[in-house]
Amino acid sequence: MNLINFKGKDIISITELSKEEIDFILEYTKKFENLEECNLLNGKVMASLFMEPSTRTRFSFDSAMKQLGGNVLSFSDPDVTSLAKGETLWDSIKMVERYSDVIVIRHKLEGTARLAAEAANVPVINAGDGTNQHPTQTLLDMYTIKKEFGRLDGLNVGLIGDLKLGRTVHSLASALALYNCNLFFINVGNLEMPRYVLEVLDERKAKYEKHNFLDLQKIIPKLDVMYITRVQRERFPDTPDGAYDYEKIKSIYVLNKKILKDAKPSLRIMHPLPRINEISKELDDTKYALYFEQAKNGVTVRKALLALVLGAKNE
Amino acid sequence: MNLINFKGKDIISITELSKEEIDFILEYTKKFENLEECNLLNGKVMASLFMEPSTRTRFSFDSAMKQLGGNVLSFSDPDVTSLAKGETLWDSIKMVERYSDVIVIRHKLEGTARLAAEAANVPVINAGDGTNQHPTQTLLDMYTIKKEFGRLDGLNVGLIGDLKLGRTVHSLASALALYNCNLFFINVGNLEMPRYVLEVLDERKAKYEKHNFLDLQKIIPKLDVMYITRVQRERFPDTPDGAYDYEKIKSIYVLNKKILKDAKPSLRIMHPLPRINEISKELDDTKYALYFEQAKNGVTVRKALLALVLGAKNE
Amino acid sequence: MNLINFKGKDIISITELSKEEIDFILEYTKKFENLEECNLLNGKVMASLFMEPSTRTRFSFDSAMKQLGGNVLSFSDPDVTSLAKGETLWDSIKMVERYSDVIVIRHKLEGTARLAAEAANVPVINAGDGTNQHPTQTLLDMYTIKKEFGRLDGLNVGLIGDLKLGRTVHSLASALALYNCNLFFINVGNLEMPRYVLEVLDERKAKYEKHNFLDLQKIIPKLDVMYITRVQRERFPDTPDGAYDYEKIKSIYVLNKKILKDAKPSLRIMHPLPRINEISKELDDTKYALYFEQAKNGVTVRKALLALVLGAKNE
Repeated sequence: MNLINFKGKDIISITELSKEEIDFILEYTKKFENLEECNLLNGKVMASLFMEPSTRTRFSFDSAMKQLGGNVLSFSDPDVTSLAKGETLWDSIKMVERYSDVIVIRHKLEGTARLAAEAANVPVINAGDGTNQHPTQTLLDMYTIKKEFGRLDGLNVGLIGDLKLGRTVHSLASALALYNCNLFFINVGNLEMPRYVLEVLDERKAKYEKHNFLDLQKIIPKLDVMYITRVQRERFPDTPDGAYDYEKIKSIYVLNKKILKDAKPSLRIMHPLPRINEISKELDDTKYALYFEQAKNGVTVRKALLALVLGAKNE
Repeated sequence: MNLINFKGKDIISITELSKEEIDFILEYTKKFENLEECNLLNGKVMASLFMEPSTRTRFSFDSAMKQLGGNVLSFSDPDVTSLAKGETLWDSIKMVERYSDVIVIRHKLEGTARLAAEAANVPVINAGDGTNQHPTQTLLDMYTIKKEFGRLDGLNVGLIGDLKLGRTVHSLASALALYNCNLFFINVGNLEMPRYVLEVLDERKAKYEKHNFLDLQKIIPKLDVMYITRVQRERFPDTPDGAYDYEKIKSIYVLNKKILKDAKPSLRIMHPLPRINEISKELDDTKYALYFEQAKNGVTVRKALLALVLGAKNE
Repeated sequence: MNLINFKGKDIISITELSKEEIDFILEYTKKFENLEECNLLNGKVMASLFMEPSTRTRFSFDSAMKQLGGNVLSFSDPDVTSLAKGETLWDSIKMVERYSDVIVIRHKLEGTARLAAEAANVPVINAGDGTNQHPTQTLLDMYTIKKEFGRLDGLNVGLIGDLKLGRTVHSLASALALYNCNLFFINVGNLEMPRYVLEVLDERKAKYEKHNFLDLQKIIPKLDVMYITRVQRERFPDTPDGAYDYEKIKSIYVLNKKILKDAKPSLRIMHPLPRINEISKELDDTKYALYFEQAKNGVTVRKALLALVLGAKNE
């Protein structure tokens, strides 16, 4: 494996990573599978700045850092911080970088992670900025697929649900476009994959088909992976109409055993979680369910990324 | 000491533990007294899910885990978590178990810990579910008594205060019933020990007497232990009447030196804390006061429990 | 260096520390510069009780403790704690001391840290109590000046901004009075240095001049250090007039390159942060800017203090 040096680098957007770099990260992550007691990042401090609710991602980064022997400074509630004193994000970051070796940031506004990376001299990892980017989610999704199928190339991957507002599916589609996958976009309601994502895919010569949710049953037999997303209430505009549309859409799709009757035995279902009711609990204990395993892989991938940007030696 | 294997077991309810198991835990806890720097749980992760306010218990578990070299993932405010995104507790637990080796959960609803234990493959410790159970509190109470008196059998133990809604006294009474104690129930107002607790006691052939608060003075000379509880505002129904009753009851009992004038010199006063005004501060520095020591013993007992369910070797 | 024994001591007020003690702390702090991986405080637990918002100070203490190998129990939101159950601070401290080896406390009410120190048998460090004291801020300010200039004696130090309500400048002035500095007080609006601070200075035979903000330009050429503070909205009385005054005052001073045109090249600008708009961002990358470095020094000073009060051997 060619060693690529990530020391000190920011991880802001999946589209900035080359295929070679993604391959390297996915390969390097394997070293962190089933790692017992480890002091790789002893004495290192990760600042965890979550200015938007996200237990899952925060827990995952915390767990990764602590299991590698590192320390975590947590900052999870914007109201109990000096942001309440009128300080700018820029100054907050200039301060936090004095206390830490790496900064993990989530914010509800697009572009925040980029701004933080400009302010900080220590590496910054984007843990989600609004509807924009969530690169570590994409890397863990890809790692999960590769671990399960042994490859990324040539798979038939269905992306299902809210394709308009879900950053997860935008990033995943863009990244899979580097790997000669066949993508099937199956949107709910009129929540279609937006133009600017399709432009990236076209540029990368991705193969994709667009379908309506009503065609789902017909397409399932072709699929190796079904990647479901929830309809995210918090991404809807804060209007009575937004609320109305949300309630309507939320109730129309639930994946269950009946719908999967013609699926390949090797089909795997993924979901970035939390789910609401998109996947019936009756699927949880089937071989199809890969969604809880995804969560576990998230810790492993984040361990690898923290080790990489902190320049840890792990031969 | 016969080694009982607790590895992977859930600790949900005190009534599920046999006398032999309780004896074993209390004996095993001694190993954790005055333990200096320790790496017993290095690399292990405890998820601390407190969905109801409780500094004391949360601190105690955190301290126990960290002092044994383990890591803690904290989740203390339900509003800043993905529960806000409509996820079910079941899914939250399925996720959290991927990040952790043991889950400690507190919730305001009865039965939550049991549900969590069913969802999780890692051991779950109940840190209090509503008015239902709080088994580690009971174990630390028993450990405190045994440490002080050298035994549990044959003691005269008074349980005083709100005996109707306080889970602490319910659990303690049930557990002491295994040890041939003489129990004195002294309730405030009409907050009597409920029928379902008395049924457990009867089944276990416990010896108990029921008294009104007005008899307190008369009974004190007999007691070895007075276990006081506060009247818990947050357990009262949220009605104007509830509030009214609470205020009335809160003000009528305060334990002080005068009331204790005929007590045995060996009497010890316990309280699960926080107190409001049930115990006068003038007793804090007397030999009677055991309540702050209880808090300290809580950390020791929780160390033992964490080590046990995580299968740590500690010979 | 004469070893002064701080083991078990509380750090409540800067005015209680003698010049000899301050000198010792500042000298001892040097040992903690550029300290790599360290186990000095392994197994020790710091309780971090922040009952008033303060990311900066909390992060700084957390970082210090964790980088020395110690553990932190955090308590940052008063609403999710048993304080909500009506417990007194006294009892909270009596409880917390059972779980920890040192307590760091911030509270919005004056005198709280002193009360905590009386309740606790473990050492207590005041991380700010209302408008009263914030001794570790003063120590880090002094350490920053001494590190930059090699000395404290004989410097011309300007304290600029809200001198009436800012505890930072009160404490710093009192402490610098021990070192034969020339102090220049330049207040904004009518926010003058209060009488009780001037009394301490007079007693210590400090040399100081009082100026209005309009004289700033004239005084700048004399200064070695400009210590700016923000006008703290949260310290203003909660009245319409308070709000009005605040808005008026906030907007009238912004330090920028133009104002500094006649400054000494060796001038250094300090600020306890967060700033609002008192210092233009155009100064951030100049040699004058020492304010972010201050934040970093804060961690170093707090490491030294924690090691001292915990009696760690660090030869």
